[in-house]
Amino acid sequence: MNRIVMNPIGVIHTPFENLEGMPIQPVGAEQIEGQVVIEPQYSEGLADIEGFSHLILLYAFHQSKGFQLEVKPFLDDRMRGLFATRAPRRPNPIGLSIVELLRREQNILHVSNIDVVDGTPLLDVKPFVPAFDAPQATAIGWLEGKVAHSRCMRSDERFK
Amino acid sequence: MNRIVMNPIGVIHTPFENLEGMPIQPVGAEQIEGQVVIEPQYSEGLADIEGFSHLILLYAFHQSKGFQLEVKPFLDDRMRGLFATRAPRRPNPIGLSIVELLRREQNILHVSNIDVVDGTPLLDVKPFVPAFDAPQATAIGWLEGKVAHSRCMRSDERFK
Repeated sequence: MNRIVMNPIGVIHTPFENLEGMPIQPVGAEQIEGQVVIEPQYSEGLADIEGFSHLILLYAFHQSKGFQLEVKPFLDDRMRGLFATRAPRRPNPIGLSIVELLRREQNILHVSNIDVVDGTPLLDVKPFVPAFDAPQATAIGWLEGKVAHSRCMRSDERFK
Repeated sequence: MNRIVMNPIGVIHTPFENLEGMPIQPVGAEQIEGQVVIEPQYSEGLADIEGFSHLILLYAFHQSKGFQLEVKPFLDDRMRGLFATRAPRRPNPIGLSIVELLRREQNILHVSNIDVVDGTPLLDVKPFVPAFDAPQATAIGWLEGKVAHSRCMRSDERFK
């Protein structure tokens, strides 16, 4: 199959200078603010975005090299299949976080609940729409009973 | 910023042979079944995925060429900023759909509520976890009052 070349459309700035000690999910990053800086040539595409309370950010896990098909996730103590986890060392290292939009200042989106390392390359921004994106999930597999820990769990460098 | 090269990890098969007449969101594709076929070299990474009722699929909008920063979405009659829409002609043409996992058969994931064209290249699969991915959105901008139409709205070829 054909390879696809992506070019970052901006960069995400956060208080997290490195992976060590970073929240592992937006729920662990409440009140952490960051700036999503879109390159000026794409600014026009941000029109109407202020109307949405939450945005889906797609970004590159730029500090992760290579991938492993079995990983020990932060929230578990045994190996799990990579695609049943959110671990960053993936064949296509795309990260996804849903953040709160605080305000827009020209080509800068001020967001809250941001759980990525400073300098993360941004690939795309989409509006979060509950009717499209929040089905009633009935099972969360190995994460059952573990998600509450994601509020206090912090990253280490295992996936670098 | 550095470009990032992605290679599809599989392909999504659906009953939709072309863009014309396709549902525009998973909510419009209820009971539509598809097969997510992962390349065998990545099969090991599917361990534990059966435990999840819903999956996040990231894929390439491979039939869309180029991008436009203002678009007229299917659900509206005026131009909107691209990043406030889910339109496919984006600088990095990554699509996102949350689908129901029916069952796994080795390297094939049988899914429901699939809203992509047959042959779509798959980039990543992640488990859908409501605690991470379903915040309480308080505003959905220009889509307010319009999402109900997404159940019956069908695609045309405007974004090809």
